[in-house]
Amino acid sequence: MKTILVIGAGKSSRVLVDYLLEQGTIKDYNLILADAKVDLAEKMLMSHNRGQAIQLNIENQEERRGVISRADVVVSMLPAFLHPFVAKDCLALEKHFFSASYESEEMRLLGQEVAEKGLFFLNECGLDPGIDHMSAMKIIDEEKAGGSTIVLFKSYCGGVLSPESEKDNPWKYKFTWNPRNVVLAGQGVSRFIRNGKYKFVPYHMLFRRTDAVNFDEVGEFDGYANRNSLGYRSVYGLENIPTIIRGTLRRAGFCKSWDVLVQLGLTDDTFKVELPEGFTMREFFNAFLPFDPVHKAEEKLQNLLPWVDSEILYKLEWLGLFSNEALPLLKGSPAEMLQVILEKKWAMQADDHDMVVMQHQFEVITANEEKKHIQSSLVIKGENRDYTAMAKTVGLPLAIAVDMFLQGEIKLTGLYLPTKVEIYRPILRKLAEKGIGFKEEVCYE
Amino acid sequence: MKTILVIGAGKSSRVLVDYLLEQGTIKDYNLILADAKVDLAEKMLMSHNRGQAIQLNIENQEERRGVISRADVVVSMLPAFLHPFVAKDCLALEKHFFSASYESEEMRLLGQEVAEKGLFFLNECGLDPGIDHMSAMKIIDEEKAGGSTIVLFKSYCGGVLSPESEKDNPWKYKFTWNPRNVVLAGQGVSRFIRNGKYKFVPYHMLFRRTDAVNFDEVGEFDGYANRNSLGYRSVYGLENIPTIIRGTLRRAGFCKSWDVLVQLGLTDDTFKVELPEGFTMREFFNAFLPFDPVHKAEEKLQNLLPWVDSEILYKLEWLGLFSNEALPLLKGSPAEMLQVILEKKWAMQADDHDMVVMQHQFEVITANEEKKHIQSSLVIKGENRDYTAMAKTVGLPLAIAVDMFLQGEIKLTGLYLPTKVEIYRPILRKLAEKGIGFKEEVCYE
Repeated sequence: MKTILVIGAGKSSRVLVDYLLEQGTIKDYNLILADAKVDLAEKMLMSHNRGQAIQLNIENQEERRGVISRADVVVSMLPAFLHPFVAKDCLALEKHFFSASYESEEMRLLGQEVAEKGLFFLNECGLDPGIDHMSAMKIIDEEKAGGSTIVLFKSYCGGVLSPESEKDNPWKYKFTWNPRNVVLAGQGVSRFIRNGKYKFVPYHMLFRRTDAVNFDEVGEFDGYANRNSLGYRSVYGLENIPTIIRGTLRRAGFCKSWDVLVQLGLTDDTFKVELPEGFTMREFFNAFLPFDPVHKAEEKLQNLLPWVDSEILYKLEWLGLFSNEALPLLKGSPAEMLQVILEKKWAMQADDHDMVVMQHQFEVITANEEKKHIQSSLVIKGENRDYTAMAKTVGLPLAIAVDMFLQGEIKLTGLYLPTKVEIYRPILRKLAEKGIGFKEEVCYE
Repeated sequence: MKTILVIGAGKSSRVLVDYLLEQGTIKDYNLILADAKVDLAEKMLMSHNRGQAIQLNIENQEERRGVISRADVVVSMLPAFLHPFVAKDCLALEKHFFSASYESEEMRLLGQEVAEKGLFFLNECGLDPGIDHMSAMKIIDEEKAGGSTIVLFKSYCGGVLSPESEKDNPWKYKFTWNPRNVVLAGQGVSRFIRNGKYKFVPYHMLFRRTDAVNFDEVGEFDGYANRNSLGYRSVYGLENIPTIIRGTLRRAGFCKSWDVLVQLGLTDDTFKVELPEGFTMREFFNAFLPFDPVHKAEEKLQNLLPWVDSEILYKLEWLGLFSNEALPLLKGSPAEMLQVILEKKWAMQADDHDMVVMQHQFEVITANEEKKHIQSSLVIKGENRDYTAMAKTVGLPLAIAVDMFLQGEIKLTGLYLPTKVEIYRPILRKLAEKGIGFKEEVCYE
């Protein structure tokens, strides 16, 4: 009998926990679900005979080590900055470690000791990062094996609304994941390489320099570049590729409208203000527009940003930004205030479904000098409030990785991303069985 | 006999030191000039019989306290972050303290003890901050005393090129002060209040939302808002003023062109890159433009930013940004690379003179309900490489403050800015005698 410890019983653990309990019944695993709020863990386990909920104060090393010592493998579903604490305990107690988060510098420093102790540590095994790495590496490895040279790789992913839930929401967007991350998305300078040329795109240019990305099933999206695509050249073994861009997807038209909020400064999170009692949403919006004694806010906006059309004005109005209602947050950064406004309009309703879209685009020169285009697309829709597309695509790859490791189907030791064929092949196969499969299209020029 | 310790023998100490030596001869002061590089201090003192150069490692507290204990008053000309070390030593050794830098939070915490020990600590007594506070407070106090209400206050200052040195430089600008600060100027969000409305202007909007500021003597300038004008309401005793803006001046037309570099991201200092050997200035510029296989950089720029005209293109070309010459710095942030490019073209030459321009604009409602406009302007030109406008306007107010304090003409104890009449009145009078006087224009509506 093996014991799996999952730390963190938040929404994104739902699918992971269910899969491990289901496999546990067949394969004799026990699962300990630890959380600061033990009732959350109890509710998630629903008295399953393979599950045990325990209360854990994550900051208490003794408590943490006490529960980790009872497990064979540990899955950290904590906020990313807490992973190193858990990983260091795992190293000390010689337990295997799994997470869906980015491998931090602190984590990398543990790599050698992980290998020396014969342990297996796997990070970035969720959706993005996770499924993106695995599905991309499958194509990259196949193409390289066939003697092709990859000259272009673009990879986009987005958590969005399922089309049937877009309804009359003009933004065709709701918060299907962490709202703060959505409001701050893209800040900094995005770096990529295109046709052999370095490209640097500052935040205030990002949302107007988008690529159109199309899915046969669900239509058109805007893709904007992520912060750092350059580092992925070495991750993917594509050191000399002339074009590599990783990006984020939003429904077509979203970026042009969002850009208005960016241009005006409403997404700024670098300073806090305290606004007077009774300050309205319209006054808040106006604070980002020039003073002008004659023109209305809507006119001033169009004077300042001449590309603002009636469609964009309608979207801003729909959010309530021109209304005389009270601003719901008076103390904080503009981004925090905007987030509270957006949360009112962009909250998921009981009957709303989310959707995850991912697309890889490759251009390769084949062994016989032909130019081949490969497009690999994933579209996953949420089933209900628990089985959202996001929870499935983050939780399943991680759960499958743990299961396969315990079954001896992954035999590696050391610190890894799921970019190795021994890891991604079994996981992708199982994901496809669970309905998470890519549609591949190939054409020759 | 009194002993003055000046710490820091950089360029900006020149005028300060000369003034204090001159007064010292008359009034029996000795001056110790301390610097990490004793030869700098020796060179500046030119064997003056009232001066003594000493070598000081500022990080060594024992050394620091040793020299501070020999002085009656201490003037810190160090970088701003070092002032608290010196100020705390002064507090411990019961010495008076003077600086031209912003009063930091750490400095404010010393205030009570300074007062209790009967010491006088004066900060922000240079140009900006310094002369701006003094000249503004003079008008504010006079108007309040006369029963007027101040409804608008705009205050601009800039360190620029003297008009005769602008010549054929299309930017009409050179580095007359710290180049790095010039390249990064305006980053963050600028906050002010205008006609009772809060205004927040993000960096990427700042250089297109400028005010025209005119000087009879030297013509038109662009004024852009400084980071935080709101905090000056309490500093100046103008808590309920509906319009207050503090800003920076550049020659008219500068901001529109500089904005191109801001829009593209060349002034970004948040990330570092390492570019390949042989990377050209043109490739560097191109890295901030979209990929396009057909159009030249100049055309892509105009497609991206349609307001770019031939004048702006010429300014960029003049900097060498379209040239195939090697980029002079390959490792660093874009802002650092741009700075090195600019330093080639914007370096002051032997026959160049700098200029300091400052203008306060007030609107007041007088006791008998008339609306009065007051404009108070300062124009100071540099004399030579040592006696620049910047060195004079930073060094003289501080030197005068020290002298007046030693002569008993400032009798306060505690931590101060020069916003109190007991401080600014004698200093402004002496400054005027030295040719640093404001021209005031008043008109009624």
